[in-house]
Amino acid sequence: MSPSPSSPMFRERSERSVAYLHSRFAETADLLAETTPHAAAPLQDAREICTGGKHLRSLLVHIAADRPSGPVPRCDTAVAAAFDLLHGSFLILDDVFDADETRRGRPTVHAAAIARAENEYGIAGSTDPSDAAHYGQSVAVLTGTAALAGALRLITDSGAGGTTTVSLIRLLTDAAGLSMMGEFLDLHYSLPGVEAGADAVRTASHLKTSPYSFSAPLVAGALLAGRDGHTAVLREMGGHAGAAFQTANDLHSVFSSSSRTGKSAAGDLALGRATPLLTAARETAARSELDEILAGGDPSQLKRVRELLHSCGAVDEVITRARDDLAAARTVLADTGALPSPEARAAFAAVLDGISESLHV
Amino acid sequence: MSPSPSSPMFRERSERSVAYLHSRFAETADLLAETTPHAAAPLQDAREICTGGKHLRSLLVHIAADRPSGPVPRCDTAVAAAFDLLHGSFLILDDVFDADETRRGRPTVHAAAIARAENEYGIAGSTDPSDAAHYGQSVAVLTGTAALAGALRLITDSGAGGTTTVSLIRLLTDAAGLSMMGEFLDLHYSLPGVEAGADAVRTASHLKTSPYSFSAPLVAGALLAGRDGHTAVLREMGGHAGAAFQTANDLHSVFSSSSRTGKSAAGDLALGRATPLLTAARETAARSELDEILAGGDPSQLKRVRELLHSCGAVDEVITRARDDLAAARTVLADTGALPSPEARAAFAAVLDGISESLHV
Repeated sequence: MSPSPSSPMFRERSERSVAYLHSRFAETADLLAETTPHAAAPLQDAREICTGGKHLRSLLVHIAADRPSGPVPRCDTAVAAAFDLLHGSFLILDDVFDADETRRGRPTVHAAAIARAENEYGIAGSTDPSDAAHYGQSVAVLTGTAALAGALRLITDSGAGGTTTVSLIRLLTDAAGLSMMGEFLDLHYSLPGVEAGADAVRTASHLKTSPYSFSAPLVAGALLAGRDGHTAVLREMGGHAGAAFQTANDLHSVFSSSSRTGKSAAGDLALGRATPLLTAARETAARSELDEILAGGDPSQLKRVRELLHSCGAVDEVITRARDDLAAARTVLADTGALPSPEARAAFAAVLDGISESLHV
Repeated sequence: MSPSPSSPMFRERSERSVAYLHSRFAETADLLAETTPHAAAPLQDAREICTGGKHLRSLLVHIAADRPSGPVPRCDTAVAAAFDLLHGSFLILDDVFDADETRRGRPTVHAAAIARAENEYGIAGSTDPSDAAHYGQSVAVLTGTAALAGALRLITDSGAGGTTTVSLIRLLTDAAGLSMMGEFLDLHYSLPGVEAGADAVRTASHLKTSPYSFSAPLVAGALLAGRDGHTAVLREMGGHAGAAFQTANDLHSVFSSSSRTGKSAAGDLALGRATPLLTAARETAARSELDEILAGGDPSQLKRVRELLHSCGAVDEVITRARDDLAAARTVLADTGALPSPEARAAFAAVLDGISESLHV
């Protein structure tokens, strides 16, 4: 997905949040070094994941806080950083669940820990529970869980008032809970013996990403600025934007080269992940051939899968739905006072444009 | 470990916290049922783990809140429940890391999910990442992480004031972070290529349990009651009690029958977990025979391991250190105003007595 070209002011604030997140990671590294040298490597791996990417979530917090004439209070910077850290936490855990080896062109946290166990500590690969894979996955789970706790910690340290802080913690834990629910359903619907309908798969896909990536950061920004009354419209706008964003991600995970996404293109397919795209295709005549290829798990069949997803109409179907969602988000943006300033409205419109541009294969 | 016989008043309050935790699980079950039937089983598994046991942590919150003449405000009940839930979260994750199949005499969350995947959804066991074991572990990690988020959520919903709530969230995330650090070190020191000294292993063991099981619940109780000035002495007292408690747990995991602990007695040994008990033994002449048995991983050798741990003096060494810790905790209890009322002091003394009684093999 291309970064939004507009909104340099909010983009700059988001970068300041990333710099703050870096400083917190550096502080944690210093603290841990007092106890042990062994935690430095996974912490650094987590830092790369959590401070990388395009910082969409911290950008959305700053847009929704909507202080065009500045200054930006410290609490905005910290809370925006917390949402990027929360995202990093979910990426680290997601990569364990999906057994992905690469993320953003680097080894995932568990893959790096496995490599260290094998190369530095001499564990031979085995199927014993004490083997390197189990060690690496456990380290990644701990790292991801610590990042989740860290995100909440950033909010308590943000300097926002007590009532606002409590609302923000509730917002973040709610969004995290919905994402975990979506992730669980994603895993569950991918079991070979489970047949999930299109609506159920869309719900799971939506829960997994949209609440914590769009709705919660937007509401957080409004809470920080004392605009509690904007919560409902921001949630609605974020829900539509998040649905379109997730569709763009699903398309890219199948149609982009791995050099572009930073992870293996065939990953979701190999695991039989029930994305709305695949579910739409399995409701057409393409189903039997698709199921056969997915059961075989041969990565060289990716080209044929792409052809089938196109020819059966599934790609067009999900893109049409995503464009409808983007239009709905634009209507909320234009017709409500969700974002008071023209600067913030333009910045959010640019985010929607970025999603729109990436809705192709 | 035997339940503390005394302190019926605080025990009754702790039971009320468990009832509250049950009601929150029931609410969550109702909410989830609106989205999907599939989450009901892991949620029920988590509920059994999180509401089971002896509720030590919620008891400590109520003791430290120290309101002998009542009434008990709702925030005490909720925050105490949050600590039991946090404990459940760590048990669920810990069982994944340790590959334990049973906990409190029931299948662990991941073992239950694996069994469902195999029996209800027909996944054959395989080494593919999409197999039943990976599914079960992922479900347990999500469940444990959701329980962690839930514990924080209970605190935001407790009705304590904004400033107190923020302090409590900080306290809980700090304690959780230390426990994750201890868990990481525990895993790391158990790698075959890593040799950790006695002090390092003791630090890891201490971090893993004591801060979230003793120091943080005690401090939380004081914060709820507005006795912020008692924080330092409660931390000190909790640190000593927690160290002795962990020693008792280590002893029981090796010397108790699995019907008593509810988990496999040979678990830590089979994984070569570097407990202070084992590390002490490995600093004696028993080392070579112990290492040979542990490398072989034959559960029938448990009896010989027990003999060796006794005869080399390691059991006496860790029990002596734990008794010193209990004495130090009693000194803090007697010499400071950490717990103002005689009722609370008696109740905490009973907890120390319970630990003391379980310090035998």
